Amino acid sequence: MAQGEFALIDWIKVRSRQGAHVLRGIGDDCAVIRPTPGRDMLVTTDMLMDGRHFHLHQAGPEAVGYKALGVNLSDIAAMAGVPKSATVAVALPRENTEAIAHGLHTGMMRLASEYEVALIGGDTNAWDGPLVISITVLGETTESGPVLRSGARPGDVICVTGPLGGSLAGRHLNPLPRIREALTLHSVTPIQAMIDISDGLASDLGHILEESGNLGALIEESRIPIHSDVQLVMRNDGVSRWDHALTDGEDFELCVILDPTDYQRLAGDPTFGPILIQVGRIESEPGLRLRQSDRVVRPYHARGFNHLCV
Amino acid sequence: MAQGEFALIDWIKVRSRQGAHVLRGIGDDCAVIRPTPGRDMLVTTDMLMDGRHFHLHQAGPEAVGYKALGVNLSDIAAMAGVPKSATVAVALPRENTEAIAHGLHTGMMRLASEYEVALIGGDTNAWDGPLVISITVLGETTESGPVLRSGARPGDVICVTGPLGGSLAGRHLNPLPRIREALTLHSVTPIQAMIDISDGLASDLGHILEESGNLGALIEESRIPIHSDVQLVMRNDGVSRWDHALTDGEDFELCVILDPTDYQRLAGDPTFGPILIQVGRIESEPGLRLRQSDRVVRPYHARGFNHLCV
Repeated sequence: MAQGEFALIDWIKVRSRQGAHVLRGIGDDCAVIRPTPGRDMLVTTDMLMDGRHFHLHQAGPEAVGYKALGVNLSDIAAMAGVPKSATVAVALPRENTEAIAHGLHTGMMRLASEYEVALIGGDTNAWDGPLVISITVLGETTESGPVLRSGARPGDVICVTGPLGGSLAGRHLNPLPRIREALTLHSVTPIQAMIDISDGLASDLGHILEESGNLGALIEESRIPIHSDVQLVMRNDGVSRWDHALTDGEDFELCVILDPTDYQRLAGDPTFGPILIQVGRIESEPGLRLRQSDRVVRPYHARGFNHLCV
Repeated sequence: MAQGEFALIDWIKVRSRQGAHVLRGIGDDCAVIRPTPGRDMLVTTDMLMDGRHFHLHQAGPEAVGYKALGVNLSDIAAMAGVPKSATVAVALPRENTEAIAHGLHTGMMRLASEYEVALIGGDTNAWDGPLVISITVLGETTESGPVLRSGARPGDVICVTGPLGGSLAGRHLNPLPRIREALTLHSVTPIQAMIDISDGLASDLGHILEESGNLGALIEESRIPIHSDVQLVMRNDGVSRWDHALTDGEDFELCVILDPTDYQRLAGDPTFGPILIQVGRIESEPGLRLRQSDRVVRPYHARGFNHLCV
């Protein structure tokens, strides 16, 4: 791109949202931001590559830009944090370089505007390889602090915020980060542990169990909310719709672990009831178990991921 | 990598430096860090791609990891900031995936240990493409605040911290970020403006001139410190050694703009004299000019970059 790089940076600079906390945005060696006094900072990074996490020629650059920022915002949601700033590094293909860059930016700005995230810097490169985009999002904790993966206890209720499975039918490109839901929920109740569902509930719940001290969980098959998209990805390969819901991944719903008393208090509330779908309980015995329609409890071993990631 | 990804993350996790400011490092949806009260935060991102910024088969993964973190630390140095934390996202080739990941990490840790930078998170992917590594470094300002590009004034002295040119002979893989030099200097004097020399002095000084209100500069050819590596990259192509010094790039020295009184005070100091090599002056007339050995002043138009970047 040579000289084109600076023109592109200028194009991005005038179109990028700033914020009161941004003392210096795009255009210096570093961005300078002012943290809110008393709040801790949250940092998350995700890199997406053409052919792995998206297909540029199918999805188009706007969808890719949207997804790249969305998956990072989902990580901020999983800590019950407030997203504040993002940096964006891209390796752009040599063909249609500018159009791709503009599309990525437009897609990102849809989410950045919606969640008041400032684009404070980045790195713009062109090369002979496929599109790679790497975003780092900085957020802040609220006065309630961050929600970690490590706070689950036996007896806690396992909830998910929405239906699962089948995201490869297209939904994986349109993550709706559960920022507001997490913040609202955290303002009315302690959350013992939380994670966003990117690798599938079975795998991501596994991280909570492990980080909380090698605990276990019992999932009730009948309670798993199955997304209608699962119909679209089912083949005659013996993978049940429950397996799809538990392992497809890229749902970007949250898995929320609540004290049973807190859960009971909120389950009937018209605001929180719909986003607190109980699917099971935390148990002290290590391992993930599934109670199926025959009422028999069996160990659940997640099959390999079938989604684009990893 | 599938299951290998988590094993690799564990490998990285136990070997990654943390710090007192890191409340939660690798292993949750986000890292949680505690900013130093009263200090602003510096954020910079650089992405390096195989074939553009390095050749993996020639340089090896350790050198790549070192460079990837080093170029980011150089940006923190350019603001006279203190580096604190880094996140690392990689797209790893499928062949020798683990060995490359380990090498990258070892190279990064050399610099991370030296400058007390915590590796707080990242994203590890494998794919069919070449190696891509994208690092974001978070730093903090000191009580003296950040040094921007925009504070130069006519009459100010233009200094560089070391010899320039010829980095492609190999030095570009071994940036020595001028963190300590910048902090020490900033603790004893105001710095009007500063930038690290990544695209060549002519281009990077141009950013200072533009950001400081479309100013100009006169460079004295005889004062330009020419790196001995320039000999190694010279061909019989009409590119003079001064041109190499002004435009080769990836020197990762600093261009420091000082008030003339401050410069005079420090120039004879044994600590600061050697790293404050005056090469010219800021002028009100826009444009970059070079005074050559015949004492004639001519406009200087930087030739295209010949280094690996962009």
